[in-house]
Amino acid sequence: MKLVAVGTVAFDSIETPFAKQEKVIGGAATYITLTASHFVDSSGLVSVVGEDFPTDFLADMKNRGINQEGLEIKMGEKSFYWSGKYHFDMNTRDTLVTDLNVLATFDPKVPASYTNAPVLLLGNLVPAVQSSVLDQFPTRPAFVVMDTMNFWMDVAWDDLMAVIKRVDVLSINDEEARQMSKEHSLVKAAKKILAMGPKYLIIKKGEHGALLFHENQVFFAPALPLEDVVDPTGAGDTFAGGFAGYLAKTQNYSFENMKRAIIVGSAMASFTCEKFGPQRLLEINQDDINARIAQFVSLVNFDIELV
Amino acid sequence: MKLVAVGTVAFDSIETPFAKQEKVIGGAATYITLTASHFVDSSGLVSVVGEDFPTDFLADMKNRGINQEGLEIKMGEKSFYWSGKYHFDMNTRDTLVTDLNVLATFDPKVPASYTNAPVLLLGNLVPAVQSSVLDQFPTRPAFVVMDTMNFWMDVAWDDLMAVIKRVDVLSINDEEARQMSKEHSLVKAAKKILAMGPKYLIIKKGEHGALLFHENQVFFAPALPLEDVVDPTGAGDTFAGGFAGYLAKTQNYSFENMKRAIIVGSAMASFTCEKFGPQRLLEINQDDINARIAQFVSLVNFDIELV
Repeated sequence: MKLVAVGTVAFDSIETPFAKQEKVIGGAATYITLTASHFVDSSGLVSVVGEDFPTDFLADMKNRGINQEGLEIKMGEKSFYWSGKYHFDMNTRDTLVTDLNVLATFDPKVPASYTNAPVLLLGNLVPAVQSSVLDQFPTRPAFVVMDTMNFWMDVAWDDLMAVIKRVDVLSINDEEARQMSKEHSLVKAAKKILAMGPKYLIIKKGEHGALLFHENQVFFAPALPLEDVVDPTGAGDTFAGGFAGYLAKTQNYSFENMKRAIIVGSAMASFTCEKFGPQRLLEINQDDINARIAQFVSLVNFDIELV
Repeated sequence: MKLVAVGTVAFDSIETPFAKQEKVIGGAATYITLTASHFVDSSGLVSVVGEDFPTDFLADMKNRGINQEGLEIKMGEKSFYWSGKYHFDMNTRDTLVTDLNVLATFDPKVPASYTNAPVLLLGNLVPAVQSSVLDQFPTRPAFVVMDTMNFWMDVAWDDLMAVIKRVDVLSINDEEARQMSKEHSLVKAAKKILAMGPKYLIIKKGEHGALLFHENQVFFAPALPLEDVVDPTGAGDTFAGGFAGYLAKTQNYSFENMKRAIIVGSAMASFTCEKFGPQRLLEINQDDINARIAQFVSLVNFDIELV
C-alpha cells in the first residue's frame, strides 16, 4: 500500500449560477483516493458512511485499488451531507447545509494492513482526531500531508497547533492562511505558519493557483484557465490527491519533486472542475493526464537569458 | 528611437490601508517610459502637463533617454490629477478624484523624429485620440500595444472597436475583459476579444498575474509574491513598459519572445509595488532586474517527465 487517506466520503448538493445537482457523490477522501488511483495501484481509505451510500460506487473505488478495510459502514445511519451554492465568480461559495450524520461520532481506525504506507493524507477533520490517526501508526509514515479549515482555528487552536507540528505539509487556502497568521501578505503568512511547525506549506488560491513554501523557497503553479468551470467542488481535494499520489508513486520528497507534484495536482484539479462530482476522475486515463500536464508546461514554462 | 509612449504624466494622491501620500508623480506614460529606459537607450514621450509639473523630474526622465519633444507644457494650467484609495486587499481601489485639467483638451502630436520607432504604446486615452496617434505615423510601427478601460467601453464602443483592429496587443485587466466580452470565463473572453481585432491579448489580474493569449496559445505569468505591497499604483503601466521595452530591445515579436517580455514586465511591476510612485524605477539597476527575473525562474519553472 502506497498511500492512506483519512477523511469524508459523503453526499453534496451543489448549486452554481448555471446548474444544480442534488446528492452528488462527494467527500475529501473520495476525491483524494480516486485521484491518487491514477498514480498508485493500492491505497487505503479510512472513513465512515451510512447505509445510504451506494455500494456500486464503493465497488468502483475498490476496482481502482482503493482498499476499504478502514471504511466503516453504519447501518441505520446517514452519510455526511453538505450543500452549497457558488457565487457568480465560481471561486467562492456559501454553505447552505451541513448534516454531520455519521461524521459526528467518527473515530477513525487505521487497519494494521495500512500502517506501512509511506504517504498519509489527513483530510480536514477535528484536529484531535487527526492526531489520533497519527498515533495509530507504529512508525510515522515517511510523508504526511494535512488539510484543515478556519472552523478549527476558531474552536480547537491548541489541538491544531499540536497536530501541525507532526506533519510535513499543511495544505490550506489563502483566507485560512490569513486567518491563521493574522497577516494579509501570503509571504508573511507563510513565514509565520512554517514557524508553527509544518515543514512545507501549500496555500491554495482556487482559480488563482497554488503556492508551495519551504524555508525561503517558494514555487507557484497556476490553475489551468478553463473555458467552462462546471463545478469546482472537490478541486482542492483532487489537488491534494494528485500531489500526494505523485509523491507516493515517486517516493522522492525533495522540493524539486514537490514542484512536479504541485503541477500534477493542479492538472488533476482541472479535470474535476469539468463535471459535477468526481465523475471526470473515473473517465480520464494516463494519456489525458499527460496531455493536461503538457498544457501546464506550455502555460508557464519560458526560457530567458538575463537582460 | 526604439519606443514611443503616448499617455498621461500626472500627479496621484494615494491612500492605502497602511499609509497615504499626496501628489506623488504618476501617469501611465511616466511609468511606461521610466520602465522601458532600463531596456532601451532612447524613447519618446507624447503627453501633456501643466506648469505645476516639476521640471527636475522631467530632467531626470531626459537623463534616462526619454525624449520630450512630444511633451506639451501648458502654462497657466494644471497637470492631470488622480486620487484613489486602496481596499484592504491592495488589489482593488476606489477613485476619489479625477481632475482632467490639461488632459481635457489633450491632442497628442507625434514629432517627426519619433515616427521611425519600431514599438508604440498607446496608453489609456479616448479611443479616437489613440487612432489619431496611429494616423500620425507615415508607416505603422512594427509593434503596437494599447491599453484601454471600461469607461471607453461604455461611452465610445465604436471608436474602441476601430482602434483595436489596428494594434498588435490589447492589454486590459480581468474585469475589463469580462465587460468587453460579456463572458465570465477569461478563456471565452479572450476568444471573443481576439475576434474583435487585436492579434494578441494580455489580461492583467493584478496580484494574480497576467495571461497572454494568441490564437489557441496561452501563457501565464504570476505576480511575484511580495512580503509588503506599499503601493500598487502604476504596476500595470510598469508591466506594459517592461513588456514593450524588452520587445523594443530585442525586436523579436514571436510568441516565445513575448513570453519572456511578460516575465520581464511582471518582474518590473514587482519593483513598482515596493514604494509609492515610480521611485523604485529610478533606483534599480540591471543587477536588481536580473536578480528579480531569476526569482521568477525559480518561482514557476519546473522540469517534469510525463507520468
